[in-house]
Amino acid sequence: WELIRVENMMRLRCTFTFPDFREALAFTNSVGELAEAEQHHPELITEWGKVTVTWWTHSVKGVHMNDFIMAARTGVVANI
Amino acid sequence: WELIRVENMMRLRCTFTFPDFREALAFTNSVGELAEAEQHHPELITEWGKVTVTWWTHSVKGVHMNDFIMAARTGVVANI
Repeated sequence: WELIRVENMMRLRCTFTFPDFREALAFTNSVGELAEAEQHHPELITEWGKVTVTWWTHSVKGVHMNDFIMAARTGVVANI
Repeated sequence: WELIRVENMMRLRCTFTFPDFREALAFTNSVGELAEAEQHHPELITEWGKVTVTWWTHSVKGVHMNDFIMAARTGVVANI
């Protein structure tokens, strides 16, 4: 995970790689399920063979403790 | 759809809006199915309430006729 600055707000971003589009999209859906369960939603960029996940919290205009927790849980989903 | 320039390559991009994250993700999956069927894959940015779809063709370093066709078919999927 790297901490990036977008529109003057910090965000937490990581790119996960996959052998094809289908597996990338399956990961997007797994992270989507996690997001729905927690009602905290990332930006998910799905491409052939990779997904870039970005977490941040609008209400604090940056990265909140919960974003670090969601990032860690995203990593767990990636290893399933 | 708008024609944008990224890394000196033209791309075709459109943002579709939805009432929540779940419907946005369902649209991402529908476009993903279309992409798999045609073996031509866009970039799909899924966020709460919106999906940004970008089509381009690596081999021509820009927008090919097929990208316009896929863009039109993406619009059909959005209206289902």
